[in-house]
Amino acid sequence: MPHDIPSPDRHPYRVKPGSTVDLDKIDAEDDSLYPVGKGDGKDLLKELTTEIDALQEQLYAEGKHKLLVVFQAMDTGGKDGTIRKVFAPMDPQGLRVASFKRPSENELARDYLWRVHAQVPGKGECVIFNRSHYEDIVAVRVREIFPETVWSRRYEHIVNFEKMLADEGTTILKFFLHISKDEQKARLQARLDDSEKLWKFNPGDLDDRALWSKFMRAYEDVLARTSTDHAPWHIIPANKKWHRDLAVAQILIGTLRGLKMEYPEADFDPASIRID
Amino acid sequence: MPHDIPSPDRHPYRVKPGSTVDLDKIDAEDDSLYPVGKGDGKDLLKELTTEIDALQEQLYAEGKHKLLVVFQAMDTGGKDGTIRKVFAPMDPQGLRVASFKRPSENELARDYLWRVHAQVPGKGECVIFNRSHYEDIVAVRVREIFPETVWSRRYEHIVNFEKMLADEGTTILKFFLHISKDEQKARLQARLDDSEKLWKFNPGDLDDRALWSKFMRAYEDVLARTSTDHAPWHIIPANKKWHRDLAVAQILIGTLRGLKMEYPEADFDPASIRID
Repeated sequence: MPHDIPSPDRHPYRVKPGSTVDLDKIDAEDDSLYPVGKGDGKDLLKELTTEIDALQEQLYAEGKHKLLVVFQAMDTGGKDGTIRKVFAPMDPQGLRVASFKRPSENELARDYLWRVHAQVPGKGECVIFNRSHYEDIVAVRVREIFPETVWSRRYEHIVNFEKMLADEGTTILKFFLHISKDEQKARLQARLDDSEKLWKFNPGDLDDRALWSKFMRAYEDVLARTSTDHAPWHIIPANKKWHRDLAVAQILIGTLRGLKMEYPEADFDPASIRID
Repeated sequence: MPHDIPSPDRHPYRVKPGSTVDLDKIDAEDDSLYPVGKGDGKDLLKELTTEIDALQEQLYAEGKHKLLVVFQAMDTGGKDGTIRKVFAPMDPQGLRVASFKRPSENELARDYLWRVHAQVPGKGECVIFNRSHYEDIVAVRVREIFPETVWSRRYEHIVNFEKMLADEGTTILKFFLHISKDEQKARLQARLDDSEKLWKFNPGDLDDRALWSKFMRAYEDVLARTSTDHAPWHIIPANKKWHRDLAVAQILIGTLRGLKMEYPEADFDPASIRID
């Protein structure tokens, strides 16, 4: 049965265009969307992802809309986990994850949106950006890779780029997975303590952790200045993984329902077809 | 010896941002830049392309700037000829021509700038667009492929897209090769009459010819609304091929000189190197 899902326009986690953002005041432990606890939360996620699976099949069958989902977070923020939990039930046909790591020499020779644009979804496709062009503001600013004159122009570039994508038929959802600094400490320690998680630990993560408050200020500016009606940001409290997944799933369902998709009509009469 | 070349900012063929354009009032026979006649014009072009060759070598060696040259014209307007005459003397290493013909299914599944962005120059590279994203306004409008709500948004998309490219280090030059309707008639007839030129004739060209004045109005809007300081349009009188080539060469040289390129300095002392 379809769940009652709030309208995506008025979602409590959506960043209203033109508003300011203070991440220190947003409780990363919040589980108010579905205050059901971890056990019931997992059952509920199963129900939600069943609907997501059905909606994605329709997206693919209809071949009209394009869906772009952007994830940004601090290290250990849960991008990989959310993608696995919320999107893995989808049919891999029509779904693609694009990860943006350190750019290659060839990519650095072009503008920063070049490699990003290359990966945008086609009709009927859902593409997930695991990190994105937002690193070209946030990381570039905090790590002082380029001067302010360079990164400060990029807010406008990106708003315009996403507007063009939206005008040309792309639905864009952006998620910032918000964890607390203490939660990151616990998650990094857990990686160090578990030989099967150790591969995810990168000593460089500690350099970024030391710049935590600079990252928060940089994210606040990005969230405030690039959340638009055509490509809204959502700040997802992400200390509780089960609730984080439910929140992303809920917003995804609300958005996909809003597309009012239909299976394409056949251009023949099925009753007239005789299969010998 | 270096020729006297007018500053590209004040070039008489440049479309000033914010101005209006009336193509019917622009004489396609004009040869006022170099009123030297065809014979001397060819000698002069040789001198100019020698400098272009040297400037492009520097562009490539320096590996800093990116040069994008866009050509638009009616059929037989001379895009292919200009590219051959003005750019062929360049080293093919560091030079690339991207032709945008009818989009593939894969390209149609994305926004119209997707295939265009993929082809932009990298550092040290010169890329020529033989037709471009401007077809996605002009041809779409005149042939009524999409409604006005779709193509009318694209002026702003394109201005923003080119601004982003320019901010990120691309020098953009745009040329509209302006021929008269009579000249097109003569050139189309010449293709029909010559078995070695017949391959260039496409009966569909006559459909576009029948829409000549609609194309002119569409080009006027494009030239007026998308000529910017960061990506200026130039209207090149193009009935006289020899003068058309000189005009494009002149503007190209003025722009490349303006980059004030330098050969990269060695990070070693050549005198200290001993080759046994």
